[in-house]
Amino acid sequence: MTNIDPAVGKAVLAADRKHVFHSWSAQGLINPLPVAGAEGCYFWDYEGNRYLDFTSQLVNTNLGHQHPKVVAAIKEQAERLCTIAPSFANDQRSELARMIAEVAPGDLDMVFFTNSGTEAVENAIRMARLHTGRHKVLAAYRSYHGSTHGSIALTGEPRRWGSEPAIPGVVRFHGPYPYRSAFHAADEREECARALAHLEEVITYEGPQTVAAIILETVVGTNGVLVPPDGYLSGVREICDRHGIVFIADEVMVGFGRIGEWFAVDAWGVVPDLITFAKGVNGGYVPLGGVVISRRIADTFRERPYPGGHTYSGHPLACASGVATLRVYHEEGIIERVRRLGEEVAGPLLRELAERHPSVGEVRGRGLMWAIELVRNRDTREMLVPYNASGPAAEPMNRVAAACKKRGLWPFTHFNRVHVVPPLVITAEQLKEGIAILDEALAVADEYVTG
Amino acid sequence: MTNIDPAVGKAVLAADRKHVFHSWSAQGLINPLPVAGAEGCYFWDYEGNRYLDFTSQLVNTNLGHQHPKVVAAIKEQAERLCTIAPSFANDQRSELARMIAEVAPGDLDMVFFTNSGTEAVENAIRMARLHTGRHKVLAAYRSYHGSTHGSIALTGEPRRWGSEPAIPGVVRFHGPYPYRSAFHAADEREECARALAHLEEVITYEGPQTVAAIILETVVGTNGVLVPPDGYLSGVREICDRHGIVFIADEVMVGFGRIGEWFAVDAWGVVPDLITFAKGVNGGYVPLGGVVISRRIADTFRERPYPGGHTYSGHPLACASGVATLRVYHEEGIIERVRRLGEEVAGPLLRELAERHPSVGEVRGRGLMWAIELVRNRDTREMLVPYNASGPAAEPMNRVAAACKKRGLWPFTHFNRVHVVPPLVITAEQLKEGIAILDEALAVADEYVTG
Ligand SMILES: Cc1ncc(COP(=O)(O)O)c(C=O)c1O
Ligand SMILES: Cc1ncc(COP(=O)(O)O)c(C=O)c1O
Repeated sequence: MTNIDPAVGKAVLAADRKHVFHSWSAQGLINPLPVAGAEGCYFWDYEGNRYLDFTSQLVNTNLGHQHPKVVAAIKEQAERLCTIAPSFANDQRSELARMIAEVAPGDLDMVFFTNSGTEAVENAIRMARLHTGRHKVLAAYRSYHGSTHGSIALTGEPRRWGSEPAIPGVVRFHGPYPYRSAFHAADEREECARALAHLEEVITYEGPQTVAAIILETVVGTNGVLVPPDGYLSGVREICDRHGIVFIADEVMVGFGRIGEWFAVDAWGVVPDLITFAKGVNGGYVPLGGVVISRRIADTFRERPYPGGHTYSGHPLACASGVATLRVYHEEGIIERVRRLGEEVAGPLLRELAERHPSVGEVRGRGLMWAIELVRNRDTREMLVPYNASGPAAEPMNRVAAACKKRGLWPFTHFNRVHVVPPLVITAEQLKEGIAILDEALAVADEYVTG
Repeated sequence: MTNIDPAVGKAVLAADRKHVFHSWSAQGLINPLPVAGAEGCYFWDYEGNRYLDFTSQLVNTNLGHQHPKVVAAIKEQAERLCTIAPSFANDQRSELARMIAEVAPGDLDMVFFTNSGTEAVENAIRMARLHTGRHKVLAAYRSYHGSTHGSIALTGEPRRWGSEPAIPGVVRFHGPYPYRSAFHAADEREECARALAHLEEVITYEGPQTVAAIILETVVGTNGVLVPPDGYLSGVREICDRHGIVFIADEVMVGFGRIGEWFAVDAWGVVPDLITFAKGVNGGYVPLGGVVISRRIADTFRERPYPGGHTYSGHPLACASGVATLRVYHEEGIIERVRRLGEEVAGPLLRELAERHPSVGEVRGRGLMWAIELVRNRDTREMLVPYNASGPAAEPMNRVAAACKKRGLWPFTHFNRVHVVPPLVITAEQLKEGIAILDEALAVADEYVTG
């Protein structure tokens, strides 16, 4: 651990509190931890407290912190050429686009680069609308798609509420979520069938010829690690094909290995028309996102200008870090190791936890993306804290999180869930160590169990 | 010049054409120049053609390409810590926020970081709406504010057309533009008075109590380098104060020295409530943008969460490059040199051009931000090419641009204008050299003059 110096930490925090306006926060009620350094799956503060990162920050540091090959590529490109406008051609940009096309499914072989996930989603819906000449976009409840006015309008959770009305033409539907079925389904198969019937019904009432796109997170991320039942995504594909609707898979969180596939759609052999990505493409070492585009949609903009762009689109430094990242994926066999760690370590150990702790309602996930859903009662499935709880109502979850931190684990919590989303380079040992801490921390959640 | 190798250039271009989807373009009709390298005010292609950059790329490389101190800072921070989530405190983020607050006007002393200009604008309007509890945003024709659905809705030019309808609640007004007055004004003073009366009238009809914000580019950038007449911005400030409206100055292009002031509003001593920035803050070396926030608005979000955020908000690598950039501004006296170059070199030489070339309708600007407006007839002011011309109609401007490039100058052209917006580190010699090339190229424009 480097840079340990409490006085520096205090100064960093003081300037932060005075001048940094934090996202998603009441500025007077936060106390951000000053981070002194980070490496691999760990980061530490200026007091010398070290944390095993089970969050990958915001589920983006897939190669952990400071991967030497990616750091070297950034330094090298910084020496060569930090930036150039999007209208030129650039070697790093060309190479990253080629590498993404190489691993993208089906005929998705062109890439529009952005700086973030939200910008990717914004462009995807514009492409879909112009390609189809239709206006409406169907988006799911329990989803997050970003924080600018287009993507926040698509977002199906409380983070949208402060920005409404955002864009017109968004229609909401319910995705599959067997554990809390909107369709009163008895099992996964029924959930899948009913979710598809529901989607079809919404489209019927909206008028299929008015619907430009369906956007969904291939595996719903922050809103619960909702892995779609087999058959759901291919069903959505079929509905889209039948009605000429563009299928947008938002893979900002799950793309690039999170569930042990290059793109999460690969797990079900489904080819969407547009894939949005960010985070994992370069682990967030330099801001970067984008849209992978099918031939058919790219061709719409062959003679007709595409009306969108960003000053830093295809940024050379960002693309160079992406090239290095994807090379590491290939060299270190990241995809296979995630699959193996999920099947052999994370899955079995988390299911064991579920057995031991009455507060665990369900464990679900795939690869290195898992949710532990906490309840007060396994029969009623009453959530440990209410939906969108804050203040005293959130206390039980805050106590679980504090118990993790005290033991050196930095957890990802959301509503009544703990997500296990560590860097994809985590070792089996570290994974076990972190889950053992969760095991202890869940004793706190068990205290609230009444059933 | 490094990396000269035509074969490499061909390969870069081939991969680009196959896999890179370019912004604002018909993909089949472009032929992007592969750039092999860049330094200071020059960049070059793989054939060894070198260009003096009168565009600063997209008016963002204020310190030119590859400033050694900024490159060194990026390499150093890459070694230390590339990224950390926005919820933590980080030394580079704290320091950059402090440095921005230090040079920002009035009580603007908190900074919300984003990855781009468009994300800055998106957040600024959300802040204004939540702060006021009102919904409408007034935005000017002849403006560009970004390409996501909120900021594109505010944009008052053709780049918006492909994304409509975007967000509700945008009301448009005309800003001052003496050369083509929407108010039939005879001079600058009259233009200013009438533009303010017009703004007040629009607010009256909209209902002042429904208006959250007025957003405007302090000096309109891409849409014409429209320098506001003295008295206009203070008039807008007064109108906003009288009606409790938030004044948002979009300084994505003009902030950080472009007109020889830290923020362009400083030239008129006006303090807006929110300033959006990007580009110049770090020359685009790493994607970065943000909003500088007044105390009063920040206080709205003291106990109440601000509902917005981005995965890479306050990105350490981006912030480190910003810290280094602003240090260079201080050390090299960038603000003063821009002012001097504008007053002593760019202004006088461009006005001389205007005298020599009948195609020049007007030269206007300040600091290192100038427009040469080209006309077919000085009396009727008929534009050299029509508004939003493309294809054969744009030919005269394309020929002017080609004449510049042939002579080693990379020009910024938009509609019927050539903008002179070089890096702020340009020398007087380079500036003269570039303007001498413009002098030759304008002979092409003169051919079309009929008046
Ligand atoms: C599925 C999904 N889409 C979009 C976004 C927005 O990405 P960004 O924060 O980079 O704008 C996120 C971020 O968490 C996400 O998880
Ligand atoms: C005044 C202004 N606002 C906003 C933007 C959008 O910035 P970005 O391209 O970084 O999203 C621009 C970009 O040119 C601009 O000039």
